[in-house]
Amino acid sequence: MYRHGYAIAVTNQHEHANTTALEALPLRDNLRGQSPYGAPQLEVQHLLNTNENTHPVPQRVADAIGTAVHEAAASLNRYPDREFTELRQRLAAYVGHGLTQDNIWAANGSNEVLQQVLQAFGGPGRRVLSFPPTYSMYPLLASGTNTEYISGLRGADFTLTPNSAAQQVKETQPDIVFLCSPNNPTGTALGLDVVEAVYEAGQEFNTMVVVDEAYEEFSLDGTQSALTLLPGRERLIISRTMSKAFALAGARLGYLATSPQVTDALRLVRLPYHLSAITQAAANAALKHVDVLLGTVDEIKSQRDRIVDELQQMGLSPAVSDSNFVFFGWFEDAHAVWQGLLDRGVLIRDVGIPHHLRVTAGTAEETTAFLVALREVIAA
Amino acid sequence: MYRHGYAIAVTNQHEHANTTALEALPLRDNLRGQSPYGAPQLEVQHLLNTNENTHPVPQRVADAIGTAVHEAAASLNRYPDREFTELRQRLAAYVGHGLTQDNIWAANGSNEVLQQVLQAFGGPGRRVLSFPPTYSMYPLLASGTNTEYISGLRGADFTLTPNSAAQQVKETQPDIVFLCSPNNPTGTALGLDVVEAVYEAGQEFNTMVVVDEAYEEFSLDGTQSALTLLPGRERLIISRTMSKAFALAGARLGYLATSPQVTDALRLVRLPYHLSAITQAAANAALKHVDVLLGTVDEIKSQRDRIVDELQQMGLSPAVSDSNFVFFGWFEDAHAVWQGLLDRGVLIRDVGIPHHLRVTAGTAEETTAFLVALREVIAA
Repeated sequence: MYRHGYAIAVTNQHEHANTTALEALPLRDNLRGQSPYGAPQLEVQHLLNTNENTHPVPQRVADAIGTAVHEAAASLNRYPDREFTELRQRLAAYVGHGLTQDNIWAANGSNEVLQQVLQAFGGPGRRVLSFPPTYSMYPLLASGTNTEYISGLRGADFTLTPNSAAQQVKETQPDIVFLCSPNNPTGTALGLDVVEAVYEAGQEFNTMVVVDEAYEEFSLDGTQSALTLLPGRERLIISRTMSKAFALAGARLGYLATSPQVTDALRLVRLPYHLSAITQAAANAALKHVDVLLGTVDEIKSQRDRIVDELQQMGLSPAVSDSNFVFFGWFEDAHAVWQGLLDRGVLIRDVGIPHHLRVTAGTAEETTAFLVALREVIAA
Repeated sequence: MYRHGYAIAVTNQHEHANTTALEALPLRDNLRGQSPYGAPQLEVQHLLNTNENTHPVPQRVADAIGTAVHEAAASLNRYPDREFTELRQRLAAYVGHGLTQDNIWAANGSNEVLQQVLQAFGGPGRRVLSFPPTYSMYPLLASGTNTEYISGLRGADFTLTPNSAAQQVKETQPDIVFLCSPNNPTGTALGLDVVEAVYEAGQEFNTMVVVDEAYEEFSLDGTQSALTLLPGRERLIISRTMSKAFALAGARLGYLATSPQVTDALRLVRLPYHLSAITQAAANAALKHVDVLLGTVDEIKSQRDRIVDELQQMGLSPAVSDSNFVFFGWFEDAHAVWQGLLDRGVLIRDVGIPHHLRVTAGTAEETTAFLVALREVIAA
């Protein structure tokens, strides 16, 4: 169902493979008939479809990145530090919780981090459990590593209780569980009791538990990160990214915090020198300016809350959001609403869940443009 | 045997995983007991072990990369062009042979390019054939994608004839063949007749044929690229890199040229936005200065030829080299020679092939330092 939604959204000419020619190649069976993943990259005035941070990188940080890469450029003839030691140190300092560089791993986007987790602990004959609707890359990453993907169940309101989650772990005995918190596309964070219950239920199966906290910095006050659960849980992994709150989606830097054993395991599957010297220099430069980079988070959260409020006033049903986006319904024909917004220069995301849409919280102007356009579409 | 060689060479403290703790994790069976791939990253005066281009990036190109990344930095809040269109256009213009952007694919190093080929056309139940001694990442990439790795056979002098290669393809019926030309670690290019014979023999099994031309720019005069064989061979793939002749190992940019169908297939397995906006900006800037970047190639080739000549004068047996390195023997105890060179501040590569070593051709000074040290070690 969710994959179909993405297929609909793909409009880039290049992504429609020449099916006949492609099918003549000895493609793996699980890839036959598929379309490439991807939100459309369209020329639209207001791009609120991929949960980017719509605020430009602050000039001070952009300058620091430019300077750092320029300094690194003369020695690009050499392979980069395979251990990206300085970057792991800086990320450890950022995440806190007493973690050190030995707890940190990074790759080109959190998708690559998760792919490496699947290569190390998943693969043929192994299973990963997740709870749709959730991040639509999980089944694709599973397929790409030939890991069986098991779709767990949520409540009718998309919530997940500790008892239900634990019960499903016991029934399916997965090798890996992916918990997305705050969840994409619904936006709501899981309680730590869910993470604890899943980890506990997975003890007897030696289950790896990944909590994907890509949007954690946008959480509502009082929401706790699963980082607090790391001590004593060596199979717990918290994945993060610099793409969202840090406004660095274009830099492709995902990372995770876990036990030193897990980072050692990932060294067995990572491609050597997977993080370029340029990526390391840029990320290190950015991490010297964390406060500046995170300066837009409060503004984005206030626009997010404004969207929730106004959608409720319109009689719609937005989900509780701990993220920089809002998932909302109910529409008889959500795709028609999506198209109506696009016709008005506002691109949001049809994630393929019937009767629902997802919008990124951007600047005040973008939020206004979205809300005005939505009122028009509903009135029409 | 070759893997053992790498294990010996690994001396980085960090790469010795805490084995006991690691084994308690639910690692995949094919990873148990492994050590991470990697040449040692040591503080040594002369680093001639990883076939880097030892000439620094020319200042003009370093400046262009710095400027381009600085310009891109402000909009890093957005995801990069998923199709890296400008980069594919520039790479197509560089490789020539009438190819266009539709023939080109790229990723973070040629290792990632090859991993994507294995994800699309290899994987569980499938087999990749290669001909050791060859690039030691091939079996690791096969393992990482759960593709069976078949070790083909070369002649006693490490050569491969069209008849032998074709016969081995018919016998093993592989899904993919990796041909490394010029071959790493022996340095010698394959004749195009070998590529033609392998492709022809693989017709009835729909075999994908990859020619890894990472070192192609260093070939001896008269050596032809397999690019000339692309027309009419839709399952032929030529992989290349900007790490060697272009002196950009730290930028991690590998690419390939093939049929448009194959690039469409790779779109099904690549992680979305796998090439960062920074990597794209840096590579595009470098490709505006191809002539400057390739300005060191002739000098490196002359040092390479000098090494071959002098080793012969010492009574050693260097292989014919079309690359920026020289493979040579014969030593009763090659590892002792490797250590003797390291003791004299020259790090070369023990690739795990008994009685042989491999040295990168660097600057004139580095070549002199290597030759002086080698004479001392042999005399000692």
